[in-house]
Amino acid sequence: MAETSSNRRIVVLNGPNLNLLGQREPDVYGEASYADLEKAVAEYAAAKGFAADVRQSNHEGELVDWLHEAEGAAVGVILNAGALTHTSIALADAVRAVSVPVIEVHLSNIFAREEFRRRSYLSEVAKGVISGFGIQGYKMAIDAIALE
Amino acid sequence: MAETSSNRRIVVLNGPNLNLLGQREPDVYGEASYADLEKAVAEYAAAKGFAADVRQSNHEGELVDWLHEAEGAAVGVILNAGALTHTSIALADAVRAVSVPVIEVHLSNIFAREEFRRRSYLSEVAKGVISGFGIQGYKMAIDAIALE
Amino acid sequence: MAETSSNRRIVVLNGPNLNLLGQREPDVYGEASYADLEKAVAEYAAAKGFAADVRQSNHEGELVDWLHEAEGAAVGVILNAGALTHTSIALADAVRAVSVPVIEVHLSNIFAREEFRRRSYLSEVAKGVISGFGIQGYKMAIDAIALE
Amino acid sequence: MAETSSNRRIVVLNGPNLNLLGQREPDVYGEASYADLEKAVAEYAAAKGFAADVRQSNHEGELVDWLHEAEGAAVGVILNAGALTHTSIALADAVRAVSVPVIEVHLSNIFAREEFRRRSYLSEVAKGVISGFGIQGYKMAIDAIALE
Amino acid sequence: MAETSSNRRIVVLNGPNLNLLGQREPDVYGEASYADLEKAVAEYAAAKGFAADVRQSNHEGELVDWLHEAEGAAVGVILNAGALTHTSIALADAVRAVSVPVIEVHLSNIFAREEFRRRSYLSEVAKGVISGFGIQGYKMAIDAIALE
Amino acid sequence: MAETSSNRRIVVLNGPNLNLLGQREPDVYGEASYADLEKAVAEYAAAKGFAADVRQSNHEGELVDWLHEAEGAAVGVILNAGALTHTSIALADAVRAVSVPVIEVHLSNIFAREEFRRRSYLSEVAKGVISGFGIQGYKMAIDAIALE
Amino acid sequence: MAETSSNRRIVVLNGPNLNLLGQREPDVYGEASYADLEKAVAEYAAAKGFAADVRQSNHEGELVDWLHEAEGAAVGVILNAGALTHTSIALADAVRAVSVPVIEVHLSNIFAREEFRRRSYLSEVAKGVISGFGIQGYKMAIDAIALE
Amino acid sequence: MAETSSNRRIVVLNGPNLNLLGQREPDVYGEASYADLEKAVAEYAAAKGFAADVRQSNHEGELVDWLHEAEGAAVGVILNAGALTHTSIALADAVRAVSVPVIEVHLSNIFAREEFRRRSYLSEVAKGVISGFGIQGYKMAIDAIALE
Amino acid sequence: MAETSSNRRIVVLNGPNLNLLGQREPDVYGEASYADLEKAVAEYAAAKGFAADVRQSNHEGELVDWLHEAEGAAVGVILNAGALTHTSIALADAVRAVSVPVIEVHLSNIFAREEFRRRSYLSEVAKGVISGFGIQGYKMAIDAIALE
Amino acid sequence: MAETSSNRRIVVLNGPNLNLLGQREPDVYGEASYADLEKAVAEYAAAKGFAADVRQSNHEGELVDWLHEAEGAAVGVILNAGALTHTSIALADAVRAVSVPVIEVHLSNIFAREEFRRRSYLSEVAKGVISGFGIQGYKMAIDAIALE
Amino acid sequence: MAETSSNRRIVVLNGPNLNLLGQREPDVYGEASYADLEKAVAEYAAAKGFAADVRQSNHEGELVDWLHEAEGAAVGVILNAGALTHTSIALADAVRAVSVPVIEVHLSNIFAREEFRRRSYLSEVAKGVISGFGIQGYKMAIDAIALE
Amino acid sequence: MAETSSNRRIVVLNGPNLNLLGQREPDVYGEASYADLEKAVAEYAAAKGFAADVRQSNHEGELVDWLHEAEGAAVGVILNAGALTHTSIALADAVRAVSVPVIEVHLSNIFAREEFRRRSYLSEVAKGVISGFGIQGYKMAIDAIALE
Repeated sequence: MAETSSNRRIVVLNGPNLNLLGQREPDVYGEASYADLEKAVAEYAAAKGFAADVRQSNHEGELVDWLHEAEGAAVGVILNAGALTHTSIALADAVRAVSVPVIEVHLSNIFAREEFRRRSYLSEVAKGVISGFGIQGYKMAIDAIALE
Repeated sequence: MAETSSNRRIVVLNGPNLNLLGQREPDVYGEASYADLEKAVAEYAAAKGFAADVRQSNHEGELVDWLHEAEGAAVGVILNAGALTHTSIALADAVRAVSVPVIEVHLSNIFAREEFRRRSYLSEVAKGVISGFGIQGYKMAIDAIALE
Repeated sequence: MAETSSNRRIVVLNGPNLNLLGQREPDVYGEASYADLEKAVAEYAAAKGFAADVRQSNHEGELVDWLHEAEGAAVGVILNAGALTHTSIALADAVRAVSVPVIEVHLSNIFAREEFRRRSYLSEVAKGVISGFGIQGYKMAIDAIALE
Repeated sequence: MAETSSNRRIVVLNGPNLNLLGQREPDVYGEASYADLEKAVAEYAAAKGFAADVRQSNHEGELVDWLHEAEGAAVGVILNAGALTHTSIALADAVRAVSVPVIEVHLSNIFAREEFRRRSYLSEVAKGVISGFGIQGYKMAIDAIALE
Repeated sequence: MAETSSNRRIVVLNGPNLNLLGQREPDVYGEASYADLEKAVAEYAAAKGFAADVRQSNHEGELVDWLHEAEGAAVGVILNAGALTHTSIALADAVRAVSVPVIEVHLSNIFAREEFRRRSYLSEVAKGVISGFGIQGYKMAIDAIALE
Repeated sequence: MAETSSNRRIVVLNGPNLNLLGQREPDVYGEASYADLEKAVAEYAAAKGFAADVRQSNHEGELVDWLHEAEGAAVGVILNAGALTHTSIALADAVRAVSVPVIEVHLSNIFAREEFRRRSYLSEVAKGVISGFGIQGYKMAIDAIALE
Repeated sequence: MAETSSNRRIVVLNGPNLNLLGQREPDVYGEASYADLEKAVAEYAAAKGFAADVRQSNHEGELVDWLHEAEGAAVGVILNAGALTHTSIALADAVRAVSVPVIEVHLSNIFAREEFRRRSYLSEVAKGVISGFGIQGYKMAIDAIALE
Repeated sequence: MAETSSNRRIVVLNGPNLNLLGQREPDVYGEASYADLEKAVAEYAAAKGFAADVRQSNHEGELVDWLHEAEGAAVGVILNAGALTHTSIALADAVRAVSVPVIEVHLSNIFAREEFRRRSYLSEVAKGVISGFGIQGYKMAIDAIALE
Repeated sequence: MAETSSNRRIVVLNGPNLNLLGQREPDVYGEASYADLEKAVAEYAAAKGFAADVRQSNHEGELVDWLHEAEGAAVGVILNAGALTHTSIALADAVRAVSVPVIEVHLSNIFAREEFRRRSYLSEVAKGVISGFGIQGYKMAIDAIALE
Repeated sequence: MAETSSNRRIVVLNGPNLNLLGQREPDVYGEASYADLEKAVAEYAAAKGFAADVRQSNHEGELVDWLHEAEGAAVGVILNAGALTHTSIALADAVRAVSVPVIEVHLSNIFAREEFRRRSYLSEVAKGVISGFGIQGYKMAIDAIALE
Repeated sequence: MAETSSNRRIVVLNGPNLNLLGQREPDVYGEASYADLEKAVAEYAAAKGFAADVRQSNHEGELVDWLHEAEGAAVGVILNAGALTHTSIALADAVRAVSVPVIEVHLSNIFAREEFRRRSYLSEVAKGVISGFGIQGYKMAIDAIALE
Repeated sequence: MAETSSNRRIVVLNGPNLNLLGQREPDVYGEASYADLEKAVAEYAAAKGFAADVRQSNHEGELVDWLHEAEGAAVGVILNAGALTHTSIALADAVRAVSVPVIEVHLSNIFAREEFRRRSYLSEVAKGVISGFGIQGYKMAIDAIALE
């Protein structure tokens, strides 16, 4: 995590199953693929003068590792933790452990879904939450980081 | 609610106690006053080519009335219902009853506060939720409406 | 509230969002408009020898006021409090505070809907409950008042 | 279940302990006996052009059997399941399993009684609910069936 | 239910699975068979000058019927409703519906068993509860009736 | 809200249904009328050298408005919010938003009543709570303000 | 229950509403009728060298009776208790009371349905659970018995 | 605790407020005084050949001490712990810690009272429970000890 | 408890840890010592013509004993039960058992503290509750007794 | 995942701790080792004309990856997620995200164990559930896939 | 509490039933007697240069008194409150009220026992918790105090 | 895991985010770094004659793997699972699956923090729990292992 100056770098972390975007329940998550998401986010960031490092993992531990690595190496983190949002205190503790601001993003409106998707361990520690705006939500998060 | 063409008009509704912005718990809600909020939102909307109709009421019924009036008269509603977020099924039913998209905005990150502020009746029916970005959240909502 | 003799007068109170009847979720609430409801109820009441005073408000406080006014001025109250059914102890206390019999009516079968619509503060204090029969439910309530 | 043409026949099913009507907690259930109830319901139905088949059983299984028999053999079912209202998923499934409309009736206002009487498995699947109007409730249900 | 004068007659009702006594989980319910129970209870009652009518059914409805029949035909009812203790509001309503005193008896100490055996719908309406004394509990109940 | 010097002025706010005092459940709330309450409170305040501005509204929003107006215009607020005590986070937020001390008063002992009356959103933010002393409770609150 | 040698005999018990199979919510339970189920199960059992005694009742008590009768008279019991799965401790106690192994079968996947269908009193005491495979589930249960 | 041979000695422990028997809520606890209770229990025990050591304390710790002393010094303990029944794990642990059998007795039927009186920490560890028979319950407990 | 005539005597009972007043969490409970409290209460009572008998104990049983002794020996009891407020049904039963009016007082506003401090067993049975006014609360309670 | 034609290939996924089979709580999970399980499942699949790809991982993320890989590469998935059954929404979302049918299998009867093992996030989305039949359960699942 | 210099003195407080150590459920609490515990703790403390004042009481109030006395008179308190751990807010408030560090110790692992033993009011205010190491736990606590 | 003889080897496992020790919320976790922790633990173990194998992972699966490897290869395991303590049944099952004793350690007192940190799946199966003593807690655990 070195080539860009850390204050122009944004780390975008995507959690479990987001790699299947587009083929996974498209009525819920939209028809764009994960590659589309990567491209759209990178381009929007570039247009705003940021380098976006967009990653995805199905492993909670890897997401924790990446959050740690972002400390001191990025100006902000955009975190869509997928299902881990609702179960991972470890990820939330990682957010607590770093000082880089973390913005929680969800493609779908998690509040309009199953009961167990309403509890987010991350929301308590994120700088802010953006939910329900699809890929546009990532762009809104970039704007928010840009404004700091 | 007539002078602007309805497809360039955005209704911004603020609920109880938001009129005291700036003097009310500034560590939670920020130091900007409600007049500052009105001005900032109106200017940003104008810059994007919208006319923002920014209102505030401490009366649940009045907010319901205003939501009804927005139907067919606006391209989007930005709703910061304040404490009614957590108690008013009537407001949520009003959102259900209209077809104009409604975006839920909160100045503070409601998920990092008291337990009773975590339940939002509106989130289930809003198009999306933006929480924790201060007045910037209203601008993000305007962007989201602009993109539709 | 004076022109009819109070023992031939029925007050019909409708709560938040009922003014949008017909355009609001017609699969749930039916296709008749609020004006249709007013007309149907008034005509049925007239046929039974009653004068129906049919009102609607999105304001909890106004519904409480109207309940107070009905005391001594009507032979019965038909109350469809909409979403306030589930949240307003103030309305329920108003029912407790008056001696005129109050019948709770719902257009849809509230018991077959969201969990939060199953708790009614009014049912505990109403004379009886009629739920799921559409506008016909108001007529059934008029019959019940007629039989007293 | 054959003598009346099925589209003029109404089946009225009464659950446990309703046979003791009049002698059982008269302050809750009224002073009329079960025979009075049978007579009043049959006469009212007849006046409306229906034949009412009024039955009572203390056996959940028998009530399920009767509901099954009503399918194709009646224009509507009026069901006062007594205490089984609150405990019998089997009865509720029987209502789900038949296409004849079922109206749930209670003599007393079950919502104003013990907490455990507030949960009705039947309300979720009944066409509508009438509670608190004594024997009059059965007549209201007949009217509702007549209107279909 | 006629041969004995009703004020010397005690009805003893046993619920589901008690017919398997002795062969069913003997470490919980003891080694005596159901026939032993019948005999022991009848003899003890006789020694106290009562005729005990000891019955068993796996059918909730039959137990309700028998409770109804006991009204006016017995000086007391001893009720071991087995598993129905925890699920049958119908039985509890039957106890409410009759004026003959009903004593709740359990062979095992139901409070020291599974959580779902701790809730008794009958205890709220029984005259008293005796739990954990095996067949001796029935005799204690007979003594209690004798003392009235 | 201007004529008295603000440091001798006490605002007394009464919520829904308190206008029916005396005629509403007198065994719970006492026989004195609302006019009696107004008079007793005003006289007691005067005797202590304060001007009491006693108001009542059935509208949550109006109570919020009045709380806002009291800021800087009174030395203390006595708030009997009636049923809104248990449902209005908006009122509680209004108390949080102002710096004038607010004392919560209830005529009846709310803790000895229904379960849903035990939760007060106001108690968490009020300076203190006085419950169960009838109109005397208002006088105790005036004494508490006098002592500051 | 005598003609077959007990160690080649399987008792198959079906609970409330299963007699309506095919006509009852076919999207949930499939299109095969109850007669189809009986035939398919009997034939499969015969092919495996067992005699299947397939029964259905809407009466909890009768199912308990049949479970008792199976003791010593069958090599296994397949139990699809329908809605009683979720409410009958008496049936679960009957399973506890017999030593013949009992396998719990459900046509639909009960875990993917209403919350109240997730609690099974039987699962705690059954040898195993098979849920969601339609009539095939009964055959899987026969295989499991064959393997003992 | 020495004068009687320990196998003819019964310790009867009464918890908080039982000393006020007769003057305390006589509709709940009966009109007999605590002295009446002591006398009745002692006489009945004597008639059965036991010496009853009847004690009362408002101190949880003292009741624990007395339970410890009873170990090896009595053939049985009758424990009416009053309100401590519902709050004292220490008393329940004391019952666990001794081998002398302990019978839980309540004058009133605790199951028919407030919700918080339904949880007994003692019932899980007592040999048996007798509730609702007044002073007669103590005699039934003596009979149960006599039968061991 | 004899020297003063009982109708001029007030018993003031303080529960666990109140003896450490002033040195215990002074930001919560204030800086006055327990001796200061005793003195202030006694003097205020004297000024009103009462003799205040102010006591403190860390023992639940002793507080129960003292409540019993107050019966017939005092015109009122002021009870600050400290932590026992939230755990002692025995103390609450003692209040139920005596006829002398008991007023519940708390130095701090218990409703603004930990969740477990919100449940008061005493409030249900006390004449009234005064919370959050420090030592002044005791004086308000004396005034309330004086007014009877 | 390529050598077998995907429509004859079955993926069998085993979650945390299943590698210790045989040495881990053998009274719960049986004495067969994990190698025995692999062999038995592979042989049974082969006999039915399938190639079973049997895998085990203690890593939630790896199981999610494998589920993704099975999409389009297998005719069915057999999933014994071990403890992740009760905690992993990510795995359940992976099942939602793929179209290959997934059958949930458990060696032990999870419903007869600790309370926290009763909640399965997978059951809601699996095609069916087989629990309590040991290694035989895997074979039953293969049969179920064979029948599709 | 005076003879040793307070900064070499450790107070060890044991709650209800610990006096029965060795004879009470030895499979849970071990076979050592309470005298053994006293001796082992005193000797270990002495070896570390402390004087241990080891006490036991079944009275909550006495334990509170002793905690108060330890203030300023000891360098640390080791508290095994037995069952009071789970019920006594008074003891927890006493820990809050003193500045001497308090270490919570349990002989058995309370987390592996009944549900009601999992809630400790003390853990929230203790310096640390040691659970499950038998008498060795007291020694570990002495080491922890020695290290301060 | 081979070089040391297994009966002198202690495996010390640290879960998510512990690698950030010192820089992560130092007011909660202390100022020592993770390297300090490793060093302190290794040195203390060495002084006691053990070789400590200290590891850290943010991956639940890796911690499960390491626990499996410790079986037969170590005399004890010290486990500080961080946030996984509260969410991982898989880790708890791994502890159940191995016979090497496992001691649960937490740097901070988890019981004095958020509600969701109070539930530990590990405590039920660990040999013992040490919480709140910082790095000293690891040393206490080594002592406990040494004593076995």
